[in-house]
Amino acid sequence: MANSSTWWERLVASSSFLRFVDNVLRGVGQVMFQDNPLTGLLFLAAIGWGSYAAAVPQVSIAGLVAVIVATLTAEWLHTDRAALNSGLYGYNAYLLGLALATFLAPGPLLWAYVVLGAAVSVIVMLGTANALQPWGVSALTFPFVLTTWILLLATYGFSGLAGTALPTGRVVTPFQPYEMSSLNLADFVQGVLHSISQVFLKGNGISALLLLAGLAVNSLPAAAFALGGAILAVATAHVLGAESQLITGGLLGFSPVLTVIALGTVFYRPSWRVAAYAALGTVFTVVAQSALNVALAPVAIPTLTAPFVLISWLFLLPRKCFEPPSTVLVDTEKWAA
Amino acid sequence: MANSSTWWERLVASSSFLRFVDNVLRGVGQVMFQDNPLTGLLFLAAIGWGSYAAAVPQVSIAGLVAVIVATLTAEWLHTDRAALNSGLYGYNAYLLGLALATFLAPGPLLWAYVVLGAAVSVIVMLGTANALQPWGVSALTFPFVLTTWILLLATYGFSGLAGTALPTGRVVTPFQPYEMSSLNLADFVQGVLHSISQVFLKGNGISALLLLAGLAVNSLPAAAFALGGAILAVATAHVLGAESQLITGGLLGFSPVLTVIALGTVFYRPSWRVAAYAALGTVFTVVAQSALNVALAPVAIPTLTAPFVLISWLFLLPRKCFEPPSTVLVDTEKWAA
Amino acid sequence: MANSSTWWERLVASSSFLRFVDNVLRGVGQVMFQDNPLTGLLFLAAIGWGSYAAAVPQVSIAGLVAVIVATLTAEWLHTDRAALNSGLYGYNAYLLGLALATFLAPGPLLWAYVVLGAAVSVIVMLGTANALQPWGVSALTFPFVLTTWILLLATYGFSGLAGTALPTGRVVTPFQPYEMSSLNLADFVQGVLHSISQVFLKGNGISALLLLAGLAVNSLPAAAFALGGAILAVATAHVLGAESQLITGGLLGFSPVLTVIALGTVFYRPSWRVAAYAALGTVFTVVAQSALNVALAPVAIPTLTAPFVLISWLFLLPRKCFEPPSTVLVDTEKWAA
Repeated sequence: MANSSTWWERLVASSSFLRFVDNVLRGVGQVMFQDNPLTGLLFLAAIGWGSYAAAVPQVSIAGLVAVIVATLTAEWLHTDRAALNSGLYGYNAYLLGLALATFLAPGPLLWAYVVLGAAVSVIVMLGTANALQPWGVSALTFPFVLTTWILLLATYGFSGLAGTALPTGRVVTPFQPYEMSSLNLADFVQGVLHSISQVFLKGNGISALLLLAGLAVNSLPAAAFALGGAILAVATAHVLGAESQLITGGLLGFSPVLTVIALGTVFYRPSWRVAAYAALGTVFTVVAQSALNVALAPVAIPTLTAPFVLISWLFLLPRKCFEPPSTVLVDTEKWAA
Repeated sequence: MANSSTWWERLVASSSFLRFVDNVLRGVGQVMFQDNPLTGLLFLAAIGWGSYAAAVPQVSIAGLVAVIVATLTAEWLHTDRAALNSGLYGYNAYLLGLALATFLAPGPLLWAYVVLGAAVSVIVMLGTANALQPWGVSALTFPFVLTTWILLLATYGFSGLAGTALPTGRVVTPFQPYEMSSLNLADFVQGVLHSISQVFLKGNGISALLLLAGLAVNSLPAAAFALGGAILAVATAHVLGAESQLITGGLLGFSPVLTVIALGTVFYRPSWRVAAYAALGTVFTVVAQSALNVALAPVAIPTLTAPFVLISWLFLLPRKCFEPPSTVLVDTEKWAA
Repeated sequence: MANSSTWWERLVASSSFLRFVDNVLRGVGQVMFQDNPLTGLLFLAAIGWGSYAAAVPQVSIAGLVAVIVATLTAEWLHTDRAALNSGLYGYNAYLLGLALATFLAPGPLLWAYVVLGAAVSVIVMLGTANALQPWGVSALTFPFVLTTWILLLATYGFSGLAGTALPTGRVVTPFQPYEMSSLNLADFVQGVLHSISQVFLKGNGISALLLLAGLAVNSLPAAAFALGGAILAVATAHVLGAESQLITGGLLGFSPVLTVIALGTVFYRPSWRVAAYAALGTVFTVVAQSALNVALAPVAIPTLTAPFVLISWLFLLPRKCFEPPSTVLVDTEKWAA
C-alpha cells in the first residue's frame, strides 16, 4: 500500500491534470473522512454500481460533475492549497450532486442547479469552517445539508424543477400505537448494509461492500467502526419500535454510521472510553434521525445527513474530555481550517 | 443560615456519598439558579407534592433518576469539579426527567429514555458551555430544551414510546378574533402561582409556595423578582388578550419567571436600570412564549423553556451595557465555564 | 455635495436636537447601508409616498415612531456613540415599524407593539453585533427579522392584535407542474422596480426611483449594483419558472437587491472578481427566497429579509478570499462593532 501510494504521489506531483484527478478522488473519499484517492475510486465504483442497478445513471454523473465544479470553484477562490489537495472542498458537492439528481426529475435546469449548488457549497464550506474555527470543530457535511435543503425547498416555488421524489408534506399527526414487527436475520443484514450505502443515498448491498472495502484500504478501524455502528443503529431502531421498512432500507442508520466513524476514529484517539462515548453518540443519532424525520415533515424535505451533523457537533464540542488523535492531528486541523 | 450551611459543608467534605447527595440537591436548585442544597430539598418537596397531588408520582421519580444519572455521567466524563459540585450538570437532567415522564406514557422504554437523555444532557451542557464561552453567556436550560425536543419528536416514529400528553400537530390557522375574557382576582393569583410552579411543569399553588420558600432561603431578591415577574407576565398576557386558560394555567408565565430571575438577580448587578431592563425582557418573553407556541404547532411538541433561553440570551449578549454582579461573579463564571 | 454635507455637519454639531434628527435620518439610510442623512430623507420620502399611494399612511408613521424609539433606547443603553451617530441602531427598528403596520390591523395595541419591538430591536442589534464580532461579520437586518418574526408569530395567540395581512398557514403540498408564463417588458420593468421598493415592503415604482436617487446621492456604485441586482434577480426567477405574480410584485427580488449591495459595494473592495462573486450570491438569494417562502408556510409568517441575511452571512464568512474595502473600512468596523 505504502509503495503504490508513493508511486501515485510522484505521478500526481508531475502533472496538474493528475493532481486535479487526485483532488476529485480524495473529495469523494472525504464523504467518510478518508483522505485517500484509492478510497475515492472505490466509493465512485460503489455509487456508480448503485446508480446503474437502480436505473438512475444520472445520479452518479451529477455527483461527479458537482465535485469537479466544486474543485474548480475552490481554485478560483484561492482556497487553502493543503485543504484543497485533501479533497475538503469536494465531498459536500459530491453528496449535493447525488441528492439533487436523486430527488429531482432530470432536465436542463437540474444540471444548472447542480453547477450552482456545487459552487455555493464551497463558499458555505469556507464560511462554516471559518465560523467553527474558535472551537476546533469541523464543518462535517453541514455545507451539503444547508445548500441542498435550500435548493430542494425552493423547487416547490419553481415550475422548472420537479421534485418528483421529495417526501410528502404533512402536519405531525397524533401518536398511533402499532405492533412492533419482528426482524429476521436477512432483514437485519440488509438494514446494516443499507445503513452504510445510504450515506451516499443508495440502498444497495454490493455498494455497501465496496464502501467498506474503500474504508478498509485507508483505515481498518474506520471500516470496523462503520460496520459496528450500523449494527448498533439497526438494533437500537428495532428495540425502540421503528418502522421495519425504514430500518431495512437503512434510512435510520446512515447518519449513525457517520457519527460512529467521526467520534470513534477521526476526532478522538481510539480507546475503550472513546468507544463507549461513540456508542452513546450512535444510539442518540438514531433518536435524532427519527426526530428530524418528524420535524421536517411539514416542509416536505429529507433530513439528509443533518442528524449526524447535529449530534456529532454536540459530542465534539466538549473536546477536552478526551484526547485528540495524535496520529491524525494534521487531518483534524485541516478539517477545522 | 450561615451556621447550618457550615455544618452541612463539613459533613459533605467528610463523605463521598453525602457529597453526591449535595451535588444532586444543588442540581435541583440550579433550575432556578440557586447553588444551595436546602433550596434543592425544598424544590424536590415542591415537585414531589405536585406529582403526588396530580397522581403522577413517576414524574417526580423520573426527575430524581435523571439528575442522579447526569451526576454520574459528569463524573465519568471528568468534568470540572467546581462546576459539578455546584450542580451545574444536574439541573438540565432534572427538568428532562420531569418532562419525559409528563409527556410520555409509563413503560420500560420510558425509563431507558430518561437514562439516555440524562447522560446526553451532560454532553450537551458541556458542548453548549464551550460554545458560548467567548461571550461569557451561560448555557441556561438550552441543553434540557434541545435534548428533550429531540427525544419527544422521535417518539412519533417509535412504537415503543407513546407521547400521550404531547400537543396535537396543526398548521397555523388564520387569525380568529375573539372576546377578551375578564380575569378576576382568584384567576389572577392562580395564574401567578402556576407561572412559578410551571417552571417545573406543574400547575400547583402549594408547589409554587414551596418553590418561593426555596428561593428565599438562598436569595430574597430572587424570590421577590420571581413573584414580581410572574405578576408582570400574567398582566402582560391579559392585556394582549391571551387565552384565559393559558394564563391561569401558568403556561405563559413560567419562561418570564426564569428570565426575570436571570436578568434581575443572577447575571447583572441589581439596580433600577437593571430592573427596568429585566422588566422589558420579562414582557418580551411573554410575547416569545406565544410566538413559540405557534411556531412549534406544526411539529406537535411543547416549547419547554425555550422562550426563556432565547430572550435571556438576547438580553445577556450586550453585557457591557450593564455591570456584572461582583458578589456572584464566581457563580457567573462557573455557569459560563 | 461635499459642501452641503459640511454645512449640515456643522449645524448638527451645534444642536442636540439636530443631532437626534441626523441620527434618525441616517438610521433610515442604513436600511441600504448608506450612512448619509440626505439618503435617509429621500428614503423617508419614498416610503411616505408609497404609504400614501397605498392608503396606509400609518405604515410610514409607524416606521418613523420606531426609529425614534430605537434611537432613544440606544441612548438609554449607553451604546457606542460612533455607531449611534451612524444610524446603526435605527435601521432595524424602521423596518420593524413598517412591517408591523403592514401586516397587523391598526389599533392601540399595534402602537404598543411598535414601541416594544423598536426598543427590543436595539438590544437584539447589540447582542447580534457582539455575537458576530469574532468573525468581523455585520448584523445586517437580522435583528429586524428575528424581533418582527417573534412579534408576528405571537399575534396568533393574542386577541388584541389582528394579523389581517399575514399569509395563510399551509403544509407544503406535493409539486404541481405549471406552465411558465411569458414576461413582457412592462412586467419586467415593474418587477425590477418593485424588487427595489419591496426592501421597504412597498410595491411602488415611484418609491423605487426615489430610493435609487437616495442611493445615488451617497454612492453611485450602490445605485448601479442595486439596479443590476434587481435585473439579475428578476431574470433568474423567470428562468427558474417562478410565479409571475411574485416576480412582478418584487417579492423574489428585494432580498437579492440587498445581497448585491452588501457583497458588491459595502464589505468587499469592488473588482470584477467581487462582482462575479456578488452575482453568484444574488442568484442564490433568489433560490433562498423561494426556499424560505416554502419553509415558513406552515407557520404563516413572511420571510422578511431573512434570505438576504442568510446568504450574505454565508458569502461574507469566508472573508479572506477577497480584500476588504479600504475606503469604507471604518464603516465596516462600525457595522461589526
